[in-house]
Amino acid sequence: MMQTSVSVGVDLGGTSIRIGVYDVGLELLGSHSMPTRVAAGPQEVVEEIAAAIAKLLRDHPGTRPIGVGIGSPGPINLQTGVLGLLPNFPGWDNFPLRDALQEATGLPVTIESDANAAALAEWKSCSDKTSGLQSMAMITLGTGVGSGLILDGKVWHGMFGMGGEVGHATVDPHGLPCACGSRGCLEMYASANGVIRLACAVAASEQGSTALRQVVNRPGGFMPLEIAQLAEHSDAASILVFQRMGFYLGVGIANLISTLDLPMIVVGGGMARAWDLFAPAMFDAVHNFSVVYRLVEPRQRILQELNSTFIRPATIGPSAGLLGAGMLPFLADEIQSHPALPILEEKFL
Amino acid sequence: MMQTSVSVGVDLGGTSIRIGVYDVGLELLGSHSMPTRVAAGPQEVVEEIAAAIAKLLRDHPGTRPIGVGIGSPGPINLQTGVLGLLPNFPGWDNFPLRDALQEATGLPVTIESDANAAALAEWKSCSDKTSGLQSMAMITLGTGVGSGLILDGKVWHGMFGMGGEVGHATVDPHGLPCACGSRGCLEMYASANGVIRLACAVAASEQGSTALRQVVNRPGGFMPLEIAQLAEHSDAASILVFQRMGFYLGVGIANLISTLDLPMIVVGGGMARAWDLFAPAMFDAVHNFSVVYRLVEPRQRILQELNSTFIRPATIGPSAGLLGAGMLPFLADEIQSHPALPILEEKFL
Repeated sequence: MMQTSVSVGVDLGGTSIRIGVYDVGLELLGSHSMPTRVAAGPQEVVEEIAAAIAKLLRDHPGTRPIGVGIGSPGPINLQTGVLGLLPNFPGWDNFPLRDALQEATGLPVTIESDANAAALAEWKSCSDKTSGLQSMAMITLGTGVGSGLILDGKVWHGMFGMGGEVGHATVDPHGLPCACGSRGCLEMYASANGVIRLACAVAASEQGSTALRQVVNRPGGFMPLEIAQLAEHSDAASILVFQRMGFYLGVGIANLISTLDLPMIVVGGGMARAWDLFAPAMFDAVHNFSVVYRLVEPRQRILQELNSTFIRPATIGPSAGLLGAGMLPFLADEIQSHPALPILEEKFL
Repeated sequence: MMQTSVSVGVDLGGTSIRIGVYDVGLELLGSHSMPTRVAAGPQEVVEEIAAAIAKLLRDHPGTRPIGVGIGSPGPINLQTGVLGLLPNFPGWDNFPLRDALQEATGLPVTIESDANAAALAEWKSCSDKTSGLQSMAMITLGTGVGSGLILDGKVWHGMFGMGGEVGHATVDPHGLPCACGSRGCLEMYASANGVIRLACAVAASEQGSTALRQVVNRPGGFMPLEIAQLAEHSDAASILVFQRMGFYLGVGIANLISTLDLPMIVVGGGMARAWDLFAPAMFDAVHNFSVVYRLVEPRQRILQELNSTFIRPATIGPSAGLLGAGMLPFLADEIQSHPALPILEEKFL
C-alpha cells in the first residue's frame, strides 16, 4: 500500500492541547483535543501528547509521519528547544520540550513559539495575489499579546530565539507596570486583560456609564466580550474602552512599521473579534505616530485592490497556531536557524 | 601597467559632501571634501560630485573604479534610488539621485541611506571575535536620529526602502510633537536638537541651575557640547539633561530589543561623544523596559569577555558613513534588494 506523508502539529496552550495530522497539501486529516494538565508536570504531559499522536496515527492507516511540529508558549530558546520562565506553566521552567517530545514520539520535532507558528500559518495562507509577500508581522491579542515576525521569507528568531516580543515593547514609558517587570507594555492595553483593565479605569472615571459600571462591578468578574456587546449597543463608555485599546495597539503597530517598514501586519487572537470596535482608533494612531506609514500609505490603495490592507484581521482564526505547527515539518528553509553570534552560543550553551 | 580595482564612496550630508577612493582592502587612497550647495539644486550638485570623482581618480593613476557607492539622507526609495521629501534639502524632492549620478559619472552607482551605510561600516568592522555577528542595529545621534538595521547578514530595506527609521519610533505617545508630524519620536529627545530642547526644559524648571540657565538663555543659542561640559563639571541640572536623554534613548533601544532580540546595538553620531553622560540612564531604561533584554542580559558577560557589549558606542566615528558608502560597490550579497511584494512595486512604480 502507498503511504501518505503526513505531519503532526501540536498546539500547546495553557488550557488545552490540540493535535492535528496534516497531509502535504495541509489538509487536516484528523485531530484531537485534550486539557493541559499543567500540574502533572511537563514530562507527563509530553507522554500524553506522544500517546495521543500514536493513537491519531493508528486511526489513519497508510500515513507515514515525517515529523512533529509544536507551537509552544514563549519565552523559549528556539535553538535548544528549552522552555524559559513560563508564567502560566509553574514548574515547567527550563524543561527541554523539543528533546523530550522527540524521545517520546521517536519522530523529529521542530519547535516554534505559538505566536511564530500562527504567523507562519497566516503568512503561508496569503491569497494568491499577495503570496509574493516576503515579510510580515502577526500580533496575537489573547490573554496576553504575542507576536511573530516573518522577515525576508523566514520566521525571525532573533539572537536567542526570543525575537518578536512586540507585546512587551513599551507603548507608554509612564504607563502601567506589567507582570513582566517592565512598564507600559502593549500587552497592558491590547490584551483581554488589558481591555478588562481599561474598562475598570473608564468605569471609575467621570466618563463611566451606568451600564459599564454594572458589568465591571459585578462580583465574580467579567469578560471583554461583555464590554464589546455594550459598545455594539452604543454605550459611549464601552466604546471609549475600545478606542483606548485601539490607540495603544496603534502606537505599537506604528513603532513596528517605523522600525521595519513592514508591508503587512495581521492582528489575530480572541480580542481581534472586536476589530470593528478598536480598528478606527488603531488606524488613527498608526497614521498619527508613524511617518513611515504616512509615506507608504498611498500604496494601501493598491493593497485594497488586492482585497488586502497593510493592517488586517487574521483570516484563519483560532486554528492558526495548530496549522502553523503542522506546517513546521514540511518547512526547513523558512525557519531561521542560524545563531546570531556562533561564539556566544558555544560559550553559553 | 596592472590596474588596481577601487571603489568610490560618497557621503552626501546637508552641510558637506565627502568623497573617498578605497581599495579592495578598504584602505582610503584619497579623499575630497566640499560644501553641499543645496540651493544650487540636485543636478548641479551631482555634476560637482562627478567632477570631483573624476579628479580624484586622475590623481590616482593605475586605479580602475568598479563603481560608486553613495550614502544619502533619507527617506529615500532604495529600490529606485529616488529621494523622498528631505526636510534639509528644499527643492530636492523626488530627485532620481542614483540614476543622475550614474549618468554623470558613467559608473554603476549603489545607493543607501546614510544611516544604513554607517551601519554597514560598523558591522563589517566588528572585531575578529564578534565577526560572526549576523544582525545588529546602529542608531546615529546627530542633528536628528538615524538608524540602520543589519538583519540576517543583510542591510534591511523594508517594504519600500524606508526600514529602520527608529528615530521616528515613538518613545512617549504623550510626548512632544515632532517635525515629522508624529508625537514623542525618539529624535525629539536623543538628538542634538533633543538635548537642546531638554536643556531648555530643565533650565526653566525648578531643577535648573544658574550655570545651565546662563548657557540656555544666552542670545544666539548654544551647542549640546556646552551642556556636556557643564555636566562633566558636576552641574546637577546639566547631568539631569543627559539622564533624561539617556532614559528616552533607552526606551527606544528597549523596544528595538523587545521587537527583534538583536545581539548588538551600536550608538554613533556626534551626540555619542556624550556616552559617559547618558549611558548609565540608557542602560537602566533598557533594563527596566525590556523583558527580552533582562532574559538575555547574562550573555552580556560573555560579550564583555570579547571586549564588546550588547549596546556600545560606535568605533569608527564620523567617517563611518563614508566608509560604508565606499564598501557598497564591493558588496552585492549583503544588500537586501528584493521587493517586499513584487506586484505592489510593479503597480506603484
